[in-house]
Amino acid sequence: MFFERVAILGVGLIGASFGLAIRVKGLCKTIVGHGRKEQNLRRAKELGIIDAYSMDAARACEGSDLIVLATPVGILKQLVGEIAGSIKKGAVITDVGSVKSIVYDLESLVPAGVSYVGSHPIAGSDQSGIDDARADLFRGARCIITPTENSHRAAIEEIASLWELLGSRVESLDPHKHDRIYAAVSHLPHLLAYALVNAAHGFSDDCIEYAGQGFKDVTRIALSSPELWRDISIFNKDNLINVMEILQENLDRIHDLLVAGDASGIEKEFSRAQRLRLVLSNDNQRSAANSADSMTAGSGL
Amino acid sequence: MFFERVAILGVGLIGASFGLAIRVKGLCKTIVGHGRKEQNLRRAKELGIIDAYSMDAARACEGSDLIVLATPVGILKQLVGEIAGSIKKGAVITDVGSVKSIVYDLESLVPAGVSYVGSHPIAGSDQSGIDDARADLFRGARCIITPTENSHRAAIEEIASLWELLGSRVESLDPHKHDRIYAAVSHLPHLLAYALVNAAHGFSDDCIEYAGQGFKDVTRIALSSPELWRDISIFNKDNLINVMEILQENLDRIHDLLVAGDASGIEKEFSRAQRLRLVLSNDNQRSAANSADSMTAGSGL
Repeated sequence: MFFERVAILGVGLIGASFGLAIRVKGLCKTIVGHGRKEQNLRRAKELGIIDAYSMDAARACEGSDLIVLATPVGILKQLVGEIAGSIKKGAVITDVGSVKSIVYDLESLVPAGVSYVGSHPIAGSDQSGIDDARADLFRGARCIITPTENSHRAAIEEIASLWELLGSRVESLDPHKHDRIYAAVSHLPHLLAYALVNAAHGFSDDCIEYAGQGFKDVTRIALSSPELWRDISIFNKDNLINVMEILQENLDRIHDLLVAGDASGIEKEFSRAQRLRLVLSNDNQRSAANSADSMTAGSGL
Repeated sequence: MFFERVAILGVGLIGASFGLAIRVKGLCKTIVGHGRKEQNLRRAKELGIIDAYSMDAARACEGSDLIVLATPVGILKQLVGEIAGSIKKGAVITDVGSVKSIVYDLESLVPAGVSYVGSHPIAGSDQSGIDDARADLFRGARCIITPTENSHRAAIEEIASLWELLGSRVESLDPHKHDRIYAAVSHLPHLLAYALVNAAHGFSDDCIEYAGQGFKDVTRIALSSPELWRDISIFNKDNLINVMEILQENLDRIHDLLVAGDASGIEKEFSRAQRLRLVLSNDNQRSAANSADSMTAGSGL
């Protein structure tokens, strides 16, 4: 797999890490960046993440074999509309957004002969700038691709192989199923982290400074970009509202157990959660093992 | 500061780490352990954490200059009642529980000539066994002590100095104020982490396996001991119920903004939380710096 020319639209943590990763793996010749802030693009060029940039999205995409959309979800539609007329025939487009039902709208905007396959690398963090970009960000991480019934088979395989070459464990999900799952395991946790910080401050305005590691861990993702998570929340609002209602039922149940002083009822709730959460601890260990394996493999031993 | 004989009642993560820490610092001659599980006490002895143990709490305390209660909060009252008759005159007792209003009850149970000063080292984790115990668990961590109007001044100073010798940053808080603060920054986050895991599973029973680092971080403390957190929740239930209501207001507000599709309102909520949370990022860096300092100091360089 080799791309003569790759366009990265949105050179933040994910876009820049993608650029570094495909360069390190020798998968491309030229990377052209595009974004809103020229200063950021200049810096990306200085850092060797991109070779050139354009403030005009359509121009950045001209002649590219691969176009990666790494902007906040909220501007994807407008952006694809802007570039549609400039996309080379045979090019493949993917985005890295955390909401995927939008893929149906996006794929309908690209011209005939161009393939769109949505991606969601599960590799974000509370950081969002190019200074935190790493060539190995996607290694060992899951990457969900969300082909639709309109996706070209060759393009699906190409995008899947691309992420695999970057070290990701690729899985395919229906876009709607993706959005339902990630409302629960990503979008709601972010919303909760933000709400918890605001609630703690509202309850007692000097309490946050007393926080220990538990609070820090729970609220680390409240450091994430409000703009990014505003878009994700709005674009997945139906699922998010539904899962908030399920959370509400769980909180109400614990609230009532507390009011009743029902210690054993509370312990049951906590134990069930602990048991369910243990699945991920094991997964952590497996990931670490996998990642160690792939490092060994990569070093040629 | 030197103790001939120290009793540690409850040899879990905190109790065992305390034992290792005072031994490493040369602050005691003999450590006697007590707990419910003889197998655990035997293992603590094998590991050199304690020198001896007794299955009888009162016996374990006989002749001790310092008694550290490191059991779940729910059994503290009963335990202090059991040992009260065996405590040596002049001894100092502390506990390491996460709820501190209970200190008023506990101090009233100890005989004249014995001092009780509550402690809360902010150094727990989701781990709870002796195998995770570390002599440096308290180094660089905050430790809240909660003297009351009945506490002896010399005992307050002794307990404060003890934690400082173990590397903690000691602060004194009124027990009621402590419980209000930690309801918001520790007890509610635990309750939320448990509720989020249950809600995610309830929403879609295969979704947890798709979780990325964000969900893992938010729910790490859902791996914590249900028994321990059941007790804490019940003993601090009034504050916890109050702060749950503030959280509720925050969640309702976000819910309504989502329903209305009010992107800018949502961004405002998220931005406020991000700004408030930044205080702790800086604090993290300060702690890391402090901890590096103390390591340098400790190594004699």
